[in-house]
Amino acid sequence: MTDLPPSVLVREVGPRDGFQNEPEVIPTEEKLRLIDMLARSGLRRLEVTSFVRADVVPQLADAEEVLSRVPRVDGVAYSVLIPNERGLERALAHRDRFDEVNLFLSASQTHNRKNVNRSIEESLAGLEGVIERALDEGLRCEGVISTSFGCPYEGDVPLERVLGIAERLAGAGCAEVAFGDTTGMANPRQVEEFFAAARDRLGEVELTAHFHNTRGQGLANVLAALQQGVASFESAFGELGGCPVPPGSTGNISTEDLVSMLEEMGVATGIDLVRLIEASRAVQELLGRPLGAHVLRAGPVDWTGTT
Amino acid sequence: MTDLPPSVLVREVGPRDGFQNEPEVIPTEEKLRLIDMLARSGLRRLEVTSFVRADVVPQLADAEEVLSRVPRVDGVAYSVLIPNERGLERALAHRDRFDEVNLFLSASQTHNRKNVNRSIEESLAGLEGVIERALDEGLRCEGVISTSFGCPYEGDVPLERVLGIAERLAGAGCAEVAFGDTTGMANPRQVEEFFAAARDRLGEVELTAHFHNTRGQGLANVLAALQQGVASFESAFGELGGCPVPPGSTGNISTEDLVSMLEEMGVATGIDLVRLIEASRAVQELLGRPLGAHVLRAGPVDWTGTT
Repeated sequence: MTDLPPSVLVREVGPRDGFQNEPEVIPTEEKLRLIDMLARSGLRRLEVTSFVRADVVPQLADAEEVLSRVPRVDGVAYSVLIPNERGLERALAHRDRFDEVNLFLSASQTHNRKNVNRSIEESLAGLEGVIERALDEGLRCEGVISTSFGCPYEGDVPLERVLGIAERLAGAGCAEVAFGDTTGMANPRQVEEFFAAARDRLGEVELTAHFHNTRGQGLANVLAALQQGVASFESAFGELGGCPVPPGSTGNISTEDLVSMLEEMGVATGIDLVRLIEASRAVQELLGRPLGAHVLRAGPVDWTGTT
Repeated sequence: MTDLPPSVLVREVGPRDGFQNEPEVIPTEEKLRLIDMLARSGLRRLEVTSFVRADVVPQLADAEEVLSRVPRVDGVAYSVLIPNERGLERALAHRDRFDEVNLFLSASQTHNRKNVNRSIEESLAGLEGVIERALDEGLRCEGVISTSFGCPYEGDVPLERVLGIAERLAGAGCAEVAFGDTTGMANPRQVEEFFAAARDRLGEVELTAHFHNTRGQGLANVLAALQQGVASFESAFGELGGCPVPPGSTGNISTEDLVSMLEEMGVATGIDLVRLIEASRAVQELLGRPLGAHVLRAGPVDWTGTT
């Protein structure tokens, strides 16, 4: 494994993907406190909220307030998730408060319909307009493709279709495309083949892996992606969030488990694991239930039974 | 990943490693029922109990009864964990009921002292006598080396020391040596280097990886071991068992998560995942708490939201 990337970038998505999936709305003050703890952990990419409709996602109804009030830490790229042009316009009222927009659609027609009530083509056409406007505003654009490794409704999702969507997003101006394993269907062999093909097809675009730990394979998939040169990952502190399908299953890979593995392997993240765990402890205490992240329970690997 | 082993053997250790670590003693009848469910799932190796002292491990005080009563399923190699000569003699009263003995010590002096109150050398000398006696009885011997990838008390455990112990066990007649990541300290880069060196040094001996998921890296470590040609793994259904250090942490990798990943990657296990999950559901119901195995919650990857 001498040819792994020497360092990787991790985008923390918990304040959006995690908070959005909590049954109870987290108070804005608590969000601000947690986001700031994360920003001070050494993370360099942080998704802070989403400008979706408040009646659909009441958990993020405070997007404007979060975005306008969260302290900005030097060296951290703040991003917001944007569903459509209207969402972008709302975010742009606070243009100086963020650096990137994350734009999503699904590679599965059924999943895209259930999620945003559009066909894939309708989503792409809409996002191309959003990207153009965002680029005009000097924002960096990331396209996020859900169900890239399989769909709980359709089963297999053809690699060709996913890469075709990624090419459209890149052609429209996305500097980065993330591939989401929305319900944890990817396996390491598939991930290897996927990113080998994606690298050939997508050239200069930054490729990001967004894995879920639904079936426990999240970090194995990270390893397979790393071995293909992928150097950008998305994860959620505490193992928050993720898709509620199948019911009861866990979601995103946990940021502390990811960072622990990477740093132990000599792949630098720039993240202070102890500070990160403090943020996870804080959100665990707030939510009042044990979270899924393993390193949150077990502690860093240099923990010793003698202390 | 075209050079992964086409098939692997999985030894289920839940009835020993799992049941031993439960705070409540599981009734013998329930053990027999669960072991039989496991044996009928397609598993080919099954550790059913341990002949440790009943006053030290009351959870396994029924070792004789379990061993003498458990139905034997064709094609399944039954094994028992043996701490010493006295344990072997107890097991030999039921010689026709099992095929293999698993013999353990730790590669860390501190851990070995805390576990069996002996030095590594004292343990090795004792086990050599046990192995000789077991071979005379026609039993296959597996040596199990705990803390092979790190010790919670001593930190790093030198690779040379672990391989030296493995050579002693192989020289004494063990056909198989398992390397235990007792408190989940291994990372994939370390695993790669470890098994590359072990293969060079240990030649004909079957090398088995026994990973824990304490820090969420269990299946990533499996992937790294597979890539080094390791074709034998140990795991526990439901994610039962494992070392209670650090407190609150999870233990063994789950058999259903392991099988799910392997089969999805095209690595054959011979195990029927649905039957395996039925056994895990049964033990989860018996124990009355949610277990850690991911596939137990999420279902196999071909689960669809439409059914």
